[in-house]
Amino acid sequence: MNFNMKEAIEVLERTPQALAFFLSGLSDTWLNCNEGEGTWTVSEVIEHLIELEKDTWIPRLAFILQEGESKPFPAIDLNSHTIESSSIEQKLFEFKTLRTQNLAKLKGYVETELNLESTGLHPRLGVVKVRELLSTWVVHDLTHTAQIVRVMAGRYRTDIGPWKEYIGILKK
Amino acid sequence: MNFNMKEAIEVLERTPQALAFFLSGLSDTWLNCNEGEGTWTVSEVIEHLIELEKDTWIPRLAFILQEGESKPFPAIDLNSHTIESSSIEQKLFEFKTLRTQNLAKLKGYVETELNLESTGLHPRLGVVKVRELLSTWVVHDLTHTAQIVRVMAGRYRTDIGPWKEYIGILKK
Repeated sequence: MNFNMKEAIEVLERTPQALAFFLSGLSDTWLNCNEGEGTWTVSEVIEHLIELEKDTWIPRLAFILQEGESKPFPAIDLNSHTIESSSIEQKLFEFKTLRTQNLAKLKGYVETELNLESTGLHPRLGVVKVRELLSTWVVHDLTHTAQIVRVMAGRYRTDIGPWKEYIGILKK
Repeated sequence: MNFNMKEAIEVLERTPQALAFFLSGLSDTWLNCNEGEGTWTVSEVIEHLIELEKDTWIPRLAFILQEGESKPFPAIDLNSHTIESSSIEQKLFEFKTLRTQNLAKLKGYVETELNLESTGLHPRLGVVKVRELLSTWVVHDLTHTAQIVRVMAGRYRTDIGPWKEYIGILKK
């Protein structure tokens, strides 16, 4: 096990700003490309990150601390993209704002002696721990960052010609 | 084919700063983790990006334009990490500085009517085009960004518990 609250917060507080720097001002061709029907564009990944910032990480932490295993978390819709049309810059700003608020809440819980081994009930996965939820928050940032760059790389799949032999991201 | 010089430069000019935002100040545990023996740490990925900024992208472009297919590019050592020990912040600054210089050179070539279909000779891959070299430069940024976040995510492989079912980045 490697989870460490300080190190986890280091990543969580950096993701929105790093993505904002990488994606702000990019051409729509980058932001609106996807990996085929039923897959997400770069913009949709950011919308997904916003949605989970609103209804998943801190709400589920609060739910565990209040309910324990007495009842399961409310289900979330992973395909929900309810955000009104707005620019990528506005979306990235919203993500960053929500993240800042959520990290302030997390730090509040930590100050009141958050028990990482406290358990709650996931509607599909069963018993889960606070440590697992917070680790997943971090890894979720990382997996969707990987998704963003993979989606973008896919645009040049044929353009790179013979170099495709060396480029792992395009081998799937 | 999707390669477009303006859009390619958009990505190339953002990568160093985005990585600097993401990685500066991170704990060594994040920067020095890898995926097992013979794999790179996050810091080593940045060293690799620096090495290729020095000896690959613009030098090979210049080589193509001067030599055509008359002789192959000099081989590069993909495992070269000749950088003296320095902090991640210094490495990221070096990457950004070299990238800025190289994009200025690229823009110089573009202004003198760079032909994307010009060909050179890769020592292993055979005939390659300028367009393919420049596309690969972009995709190389993306694939190593994906590598960085994948290496980091791997630290929490067991910490996330049952959520591993949902996290694609840890499924390999």
